[in-house]
Amino acid sequence: MGAATPENPIVAVHSTGDGPSAWVAALKEEMPGVDARPALEIAGDDLARVDVSISWRLPHGVLARFPNLQLVQSIGAGVDHILEDPDRPGHVPIARLIDPFMATSMTHHIVMQILRWHRQADKFEGYKTEHHWPMSEAFDHRHLHVAILGLGTLGEHLSRALTALEIRSTGWTRSPRAVGGVASVSGPAALDDLLTRSNVVVCLLPLTTQTEGILGSDLFAKLPKGAFLVNVGRGGHLVEEDLIPALDSGRLSAAALDVFRQEPLPSDHPFWDDERIYITPHIAAEVNPSTASIVFAENIRRIRTGGTPTGLVDLGRGY
Amino acid sequence: MGAATPENPIVAVHSTGDGPSAWVAALKEEMPGVDARPALEIAGDDLARVDVSISWRLPHGVLARFPNLQLVQSIGAGVDHILEDPDRPGHVPIARLIDPFMATSMTHHIVMQILRWHRQADKFEGYKTEHHWPMSEAFDHRHLHVAILGLGTLGEHLSRALTALEIRSTGWTRSPRAVGGVASVSGPAALDDLLTRSNVVVCLLPLTTQTEGILGSDLFAKLPKGAFLVNVGRGGHLVEEDLIPALDSGRLSAAALDVFRQEPLPSDHPFWDDERIYITPHIAAEVNPSTASIVFAENIRRIRTGGTPTGLVDLGRGY
Repeated sequence: MGAATPENPIVAVHSTGDGPSAWVAALKEEMPGVDARPALEIAGDDLARVDVSISWRLPHGVLARFPNLQLVQSIGAGVDHILEDPDRPGHVPIARLIDPFMATSMTHHIVMQILRWHRQADKFEGYKTEHHWPMSEAFDHRHLHVAILGLGTLGEHLSRALTALEIRSTGWTRSPRAVGGVASVSGPAALDDLLTRSNVVVCLLPLTTQTEGILGSDLFAKLPKGAFLVNVGRGGHLVEEDLIPALDSGRLSAAALDVFRQEPLPSDHPFWDDERIYITPHIAAEVNPSTASIVFAENIRRIRTGGTPTGLVDLGRGY
Repeated sequence: MGAATPENPIVAVHSTGDGPSAWVAALKEEMPGVDARPALEIAGDDLARVDVSISWRLPHGVLARFPNLQLVQSIGAGVDHILEDPDRPGHVPIARLIDPFMATSMTHHIVMQILRWHRQADKFEGYKTEHHWPMSEAFDHRHLHVAILGLGTLGEHLSRALTALEIRSTGWTRSPRAVGGVASVSGPAALDDLLTRSNVVVCLLPLTTQTEGILGSDLFAKLPKGAFLVNVGRGGHLVEEDLIPALDSGRLSAAALDVFRQEPLPSDHPFWDDERIYITPHIAAEVNPSTASIVFAENIRRIRTGGTPTGLVDLGRGY
């Protein structure tokens, strides 16, 4: 793993939103004695003492200031925000966050969206203003079939939860990947076939050059009319310009988006005012400092004792 | 089981809503050759040929017209609509409908309501009009604890689904009833204790003189502040006058009601205009004619061959 751990090593912490202080505190709670500091405040001789970066959307160029860096730990399941840094030291391993808490939260978000769509929660809310319920058809969950694009930790977790809820699903991966007890297919031809028989599509793919823009007119055209799209991958998976036309044509009946090309979603974006689009601010699997710090502390210990951290990214594939 | 099956027996069918014709058709589909007719159209000598009544809210007095009745089959999990008939022949066994399809639908409804509340779906919908998301706290499902009042087929099904979704729950029954693999307690003292540590209460009890009005001020006062109430039992379980005061005081933060003292809910009822109350028109576990008819056909065969139907009600307990 390159150079040895420096003496008196420092963990450089960065996050957006509330800033790094909550993360520093949570990490110290889990790993008493750790020297963890906000990444942007580290300077001078201390730069050489940083062996681990724990970050979410660290400004580009900051990683390159740490000559003895041993591990770049993402605060999140995705690592695209790290790979996009052109000055990133390419030899330093990157770890995604694999936290069972986040998988559960992600599954809850997706299950909620699927059930809201299937059981027409919005329609019934709308009837409240009329003080009257028209006759409505019964919900038949046997008609649901969920295509799960991406069968990593999150996709597998979702698949098992849907099975427990008696909702059929099939996972899809670009390259073959067997996951015990989970129905799955792989490759482009199998995707086309899967889409024709799926009325719900959930995107949990990593963002790579191969998956960017995968949710666009071509994919929508293969779905049965009135399908439901859930994007909880990355904003870059969706061709945003293609969504409203697909809704207007009836190809899609609704979409639930937790991620956007630009976050937070610009205030003049057309998604805000479209009733068919549920939008949430990247909260499907928010990281929980108290549970994530357990994972971070373990990875710091491993990297400092010559072990292998969990969640290491294959730098060749990019996820 | 009383008198023998009459020759050329007739199944008398009744339902509200769309009327009995869909049910007659579904039953014939499942049981070719069955003589099934709308209950209110049977007259004269044919009355003595009726051995099975399959009904939802049959007008009082109709059952008493059938001198050779062998089984009263409810179209639904509840039988209170049958027990309320003062002219019901008391010796004729009553069967509730136990249909796996309905248990799944009920579980989906409850899971959707719990997740919508937990993940503040309404709040995020509200932000759409503002074109702006304020910072929000992460959802922590480890804080959820669901009290399931009633551990019949539906309560047990729900409990297992919540476990699969990593949401803690505890079932409660009036009298001790062990259900394998399901955390449960019983009796009045255990209920008081359970309520103090539950932020979600789901009512799946049968409606009896002991359970009528159980969801009232006394019960709400034992819950932690801000709890969420889901009533999918019967309207009579809830003291409707107590609900809005409990919401106003903050004892409850929201409620999801699928059943009401009077159904459909009268248009001047205050629940229509209260944003904290989600209301649905008794659709949590709508009966599906195609799946329910499988159960009905089997029970007709059993009663006509001296067997025991599924779902028989203990007439002493009333459920």
